[in-house]
Amino acid sequence: MKIGIIGLGLIGGSFAISAKKYIEDCECYGEDINKNHLNKAIELNIIDKVLKKKKYSLMDIIILAVPVDVASNNIISLLDKLNENSLIIDVGSNKKNICEKVSLHPKRNQFLATHPIAGTEYSGPEAAFEKLFYNQNQIICESNKTRPDLLEWALNWFSQMSMKVLEMSPEEHDEHIAYVSHLSHISSFMLGKTVIEKEKDEKAIFDMAGSGFASTVRLAKSSPDMWAPILLENRKNIISVLSEYIENLKKFKFLLQEKKKIKIYEQLKSINKIEKILNGIKNNNK
Amino acid sequence: MKIGIIGLGLIGGSFAISAKKYIEDCECYGEDINKNHLNKAIELNIIDKVLKKKKYSLMDIIILAVPVDVASNNIISLLDKLNENSLIIDVGSNKKNICEKVSLHPKRNQFLATHPIAGTEYSGPEAAFEKLFYNQNQIICESNKTRPDLLEWALNWFSQMSMKVLEMSPEEHDEHIAYVSHLSHISSFMLGKTVIEKEKDEKAIFDMAGSGFASTVRLAKSSPDMWAPILLENRKNIISVLSEYIENLKKFKFLLQEKKKIKIYEQLKSINKIEKILNGIKNNNK
Repeated sequence: MKIGIIGLGLIGGSFAISAKKYIEDCECYGEDINKNHLNKAIELNIIDKVLKKKKYSLMDIIILAVPVDVASNNIISLLDKLNENSLIIDVGSNKKNICEKVSLHPKRNQFLATHPIAGTEYSGPEAAFEKLFYNQNQIICESNKTRPDLLEWALNWFSQMSMKVLEMSPEEHDEHIAYVSHLSHISSFMLGKTVIEKEKDEKAIFDMAGSGFASTVRLAKSSPDMWAPILLENRKNIISVLSEYIENLKKFKFLLQEKKKIKIYEQLKSINKIEKILNGIKNNNK
Repeated sequence: MKIGIIGLGLIGGSFAISAKKYIEDCECYGEDINKNHLNKAIELNIIDKVLKKKKYSLMDIIILAVPVDVASNNIISLLDKLNENSLIIDVGSNKKNICEKVSLHPKRNQFLATHPIAGTEYSGPEAAFEKLFYNQNQIICESNKTRPDLLEWALNWFSQMSMKVLEMSPEEHDEHIAYVSHLSHISSFMLGKTVIEKEKDEKAIFDMAGSGFASTVRLAKSSPDMWAPILLENRKNIISVLSEYIENLKKFKFLLQEKKKIKIYEQLKSINKIEKILNGIKNNNK
């Protein structure tokens, strides 16, 4: 079976490793616009061969793991080139735009929209590892529009990878993900920005920052190539979520200005229930 | 040697454990307003005996590890009760207020203001562990106002605990810590609040939140008993830092609204240098 991976970053690379582990007689082809990534993926044995555009039609499965704007720009021509029994699986962080793009394509039923809820702040093929997806959620959208035999194959593979599949509409996906992923990235990037602007002398940060700062600012290490397009594409949802976040920060600032001790205490106390929610996530991912 | 620990939470408990490990013939006395904490600390052998107020004058060293408002309210009467060769070490997260409080006390030179840059999001004696302080920074303020023999004893203990001591003025401490600790806590709490308000159905959060959300929202599990007083006491610095953070978020929202792709990319890219800074913290703490 010929698997083509377009985009050999953390996600694409990890899918390549999973393909070679779980798919019988797997030949793994890969491409990446970044030649260093491509060479590294070959060197690390993540892929077997370079995927050339003229070979798209020979692939049985194509994983599209590129920034969301690149995916949107290329998905139509990719579908055009696909042979009639193949499947393209998109794994980007937004779902509405790409689902709209493919909606009227004659090969719509050879497309599956997914969002594996997995990642680290690192990027590139060196960051890829098979266990990335283990016990993680795999959101799929509009699966009724994918040809049943192709869908079944994909679901079977995800199950071998121990992913938990959840169905959701693209709109619902993009709205929720703005809260639990996109907002986290913005809050972290802006925290990094605020501290960098102030602490010109980096040594002062070294001395005083503890593990708490490291944890909240971790996502600010994320790749701008991946994240700028995600945030722009889902900007309608994000702007609304970001406005709520800013509003909450302003209200909290007001409570500090007014020295509202009891209200501050009660608010922090009530937010503590996030611990239960986080434990839920952890248990869920076990 | 008699060590009294006032406040048997994560920090006080960990100092108690360190005292028993490094101080010769250490008898460790402890008190906590929370009877469960006190009993737990005895049960876990973190302290040897209960510290009664009438025994304050028998202690050689007192560690004050209570919420900053409680510390400020009690420091004068504690100093009053201290015998003439003893030392009180305050370990709270703000330094300016308490240093002002003690400034005119006749026993000012038996007081040492410190802030160990160490912590987790957990609280109570069960959360305490000796390695908490290992290779972490210990900020000290106005050490020239502490009696040299008492200061030397304290520095020697911190060194046995493998802490790295840094001197800083109380004002400087409170301003910097607002950036690298207090702002992280507020950004995390408000992120938790925003998501909780939206996602009434917690299941949706479980399904879609990954490790990134968990990381940015981790500090929102922190104890309000500890954090409400810290944020209130250092509110002047925090309000200014929070205003800068809100301003950065608003500017970023504007870039999204205006679809300023290149500016967004460049901004994220430039914030990526936080990785270098974080690696600095990590190496620094090795």
